Amino acid sequence: MTEKSFDVIVIGSGPGGYVAAIRCAQLGLKAAVVEREHLGGICLNWGCIPTKALLRSSEVFHLMQHASDFGLKADKITYDLDKMVKRSRNIAGQLSGGVTHLLKKNKVQVFLGHGAIRSPTSVSVKIENGEESLAAKNIIIATGARARELPQIPADGKSIWTYKHALQPVRMPKKLLVVGSGAIGIEFASFFNTLGAETTIVEVLDRILPVEDEEISAFARKQFVKQGMTILEKASVEKVELKKNTVVAQIKTAEKTQELEFDTVISAVGIVGNIENLGLETLGVKVDRSHIVTDEWCRTGVDGVFAIGDVVAPPWLAHKASHEGVMVAELIAGLSTHPVKPESIAGCTYCYPQVASVGYTEAQAKERGYQVRVGRFSFIGNGKAIALGEPEGMIKTVFDSKTGELLGAHMIGAEVTELIQGYIVGRQLETTEQELMQTVFPHPTLSEMMHESVLDAYDRVIHL
Amino acid sequence: MTEKSFDVIVIGSGPGGYVAAIRCAQLGLKAAVVEREHLGGICLNWGCIPTKALLRSSEVFHLMQHASDFGLKADKITYDLDKMVKRSRNIAGQLSGGVTHLLKKNKVQVFLGHGAIRSPTSVSVKIENGEESLAAKNIIIATGARARELPQIPADGKSIWTYKHALQPVRMPKKLLVVGSGAIGIEFASFFNTLGAETTIVEVLDRILPVEDEEISAFARKQFVKQGMTILEKASVEKVELKKNTVVAQIKTAEKTQELEFDTVISAVGIVGNIENLGLETLGVKVDRSHIVTDEWCRTGVDGVFAIGDVVAPPWLAHKASHEGVMVAELIAGLSTHPVKPESIAGCTYCYPQVASVGYTEAQAKERGYQVRVGRFSFIGNGKAIALGEPEGMIKTVFDSKTGELLGAHMIGAEVTELIQGYIVGRQLETTEQELMQTVFPHPTLSEMMHESVLDAYDRVIHL
Repeated sequence: MTEKSFDVIVIGSGPGGYVAAIRCAQLGLKAAVVEREHLGGICLNWGCIPTKALLRSSEVFHLMQHASDFGLKADKITYDLDKMVKRSRNIAGQLSGGVTHLLKKNKVQVFLGHGAIRSPTSVSVKIENGEESLAAKNIIIATGARARELPQIPADGKSIWTYKHALQPVRMPKKLLVVGSGAIGIEFASFFNTLGAETTIVEVLDRILPVEDEEISAFARKQFVKQGMTILEKASVEKVELKKNTVVAQIKTAEKTQELEFDTVISAVGIVGNIENLGLETLGVKVDRSHIVTDEWCRTGVDGVFAIGDVVAPPWLAHKASHEGVMVAELIAGLSTHPVKPESIAGCTYCYPQVASVGYTEAQAKERGYQVRVGRFSFIGNGKAIALGEPEGMIKTVFDSKTGELLGAHMIGAEVTELIQGYIVGRQLETTEQELMQTVFPHPTLSEMMHESVLDAYDRVIHL
Repeated sequence: MTEKSFDVIVIGSGPGGYVAAIRCAQLGLKAAVVEREHLGGICLNWGCIPTKALLRSSEVFHLMQHASDFGLKADKITYDLDKMVKRSRNIAGQLSGGVTHLLKKNKVQVFLGHGAIRSPTSVSVKIENGEESLAAKNIIIATGARARELPQIPADGKSIWTYKHALQPVRMPKKLLVVGSGAIGIEFASFFNTLGAETTIVEVLDRILPVEDEEISAFARKQFVKQGMTILEKASVEKVELKKNTVVAQIKTAEKTQELEFDTVISAVGIVGNIENLGLETLGVKVDRSHIVTDEWCRTGVDGVFAIGDVVAPPWLAHKASHEGVMVAELIAGLSTHPVKPESIAGCTYCYPQVASVGYTEAQAKERGYQVRVGRFSFIGNGKAIALGEPEGMIKTVFDSKTGELLGAHMIGAEVTELIQGYIVGRQLETTEQELMQTVFPHPTLSEMMHESVLDAYDRVIHL
């Protein structure tokens, strides 16, 4: 068997992996990608993209149900879950196909099979009829992560689902239990609740969306309850019992332990890194609770071996992965580059209403010793929000009261996943409150609230 | 009659006027507002806000008509124009009421009536039963503008409409002629066309949306034609003839003069400043083609008399007016402040697809002697756009190839009116391509395209 030589081998083809390979190619490096499942990884195939496709369907359904608010009318408004899912799968397929095309266009060679690192300069790939041997001076591990399973809630795809099952559901849930209230749990809860499922969320911590600012969690809770959801915090599912057409879940809260019946349970209790059978132990790559340990340059400590994306430290988000991919490619090419700072990575949750944030929460800023100035603005004070029929939402900004630095921004409401980037650009350019106050946000837009929230922090708000 | 004394008198209560008055109040100045019609001015009552309310209705109608694309179904999808208009009027009323409340809360005294400047320190207001005499060291003229009328297309509110008539239409147009393809004309064309009117646009210049970058105009044209509109450029309406239920318009193009029949004509050929009966002549305030001439600090040349918003130089946009209001208030209060730069003002058009831009077009940049690098990215390469079912759009960025300064950004497609602010923040902070390329836009969002368009300008685009 001849060994095939490259400058860089990337194991895994999610947004971290394929972007790393393309950036390598742009910089004149010969790159290979090893993928054991679908090009594009979880994000394109089972994560970001297909969920957003489903959520778009439920968003339009929600609007149709509120047609009369807009002077519109329709009879017999229904949905076809199979058609929604088919659309979502088609879009995932289209984008995965797009990655195939991009890799080809950039002359990145793709090997479909499980890749294992044999030495710091060689990777073997189990392919259909044997094995391929690849050699390179540099290896980038971008194998991603998968759903964490709780032993007491074993997914079977019938009554108990992981995100993969939830993305192509065998039926519409009537009584749904979602275990875990991070982005994934909340998005599925929002989707199925909008379509009419009676939805309960169980969260082990003291509030839902626990990585968000406390006020955002509280605001979201209020909205979800108004939409008919039941939310149990400081709660855990002790065990589940499969009955004929139902699942009985024993749910323990501070007050009591109760048995509740559901037809469907979605388990969304975090992820574990895909570190198995990669040869990490032999190589001497350090691992901490299923995630590879690296320095800020994504170096594993083994010369020439890098790790990026969900298989390394949080935040576990596609845009962090792809920027790490670019950074590592540039590092390998000998360019001067910058580490990706975790606090510059925004988090977005596409529930209804949407949630987005970047930087420190108020509590985190205080923990770090900052004296803060906080600004808030409510959607109800914004003309565009009212014109859209979306008056529920808020924006909270946290500033360092000494320097005026924007430490964090926290948003809930219509389109905030698209709005947050303005604050990200500001933080990238180390903006202060003065510059943001001078910035002319166009009228009438939701983005004007980003301005007002800053004004409010400095007692200059207009529309409040 | 006793004269009432203030620090500042603001004539007009549109976004420039009421924001100026509130900012004055925040700074401890005693402010009065004089308004002859509705608090909130054209913007809140007959402009930005009610049009966006109507356009939201047509957007939802459009989505409902495409329900099956999203796995949804409904029978008998219809609209009720009266209900749409009622919603729009209610929202305008709600926001106008909001301005009343804000002014009261900030202790700004309101005088309802026509204000005329008697001297650089006094204003008389014709009120219902007489006249009020107001005195102040400073006067801010914020009287706004109104629709320009062409003598050959006299609006009658029946067949020939201005924007005011179009905002509360007496009936749904079947065959509609829109004269003028600026933001106002295009928004009404988009609204009525989406609802099923057979729509023709006449533009005297060589392309629609003539203030936008040429590529954006061309892209918009293609979309509008696909939606069934007829677009005539380098065309003018020579005369109109009212018949029983129709209007016959004589339309002259380069090729020929033709007579076309419509039931409705909307005239949207720009605005004229409200400069009449203000006492400007006596005061010696200079006027140029219906707009007051000022320096960059909005000073008229007459000590203590300022002018802001639509009554002064373009761009005639609410957000420019309100920032000028803040700037003048701070100037009067003796604070150090900054002029509002016209090239920092974004323009937004809420047609389908939306259009937004800031800074120089490619042609403008070249005219000014810049060597440019241009980046482009298409919505079809963006996962969120595909998930939304909105794959039609583009983003174009123009950089100074010497310094990397972002000279202009031009967008067409879903949500671009909300996206543009990220580039505005960047320009405010004098960003370069390097910083924008390092900025981590979240995935999956439309805003990622803002990153890709920058990457493309520097031959580093990923998803193209």
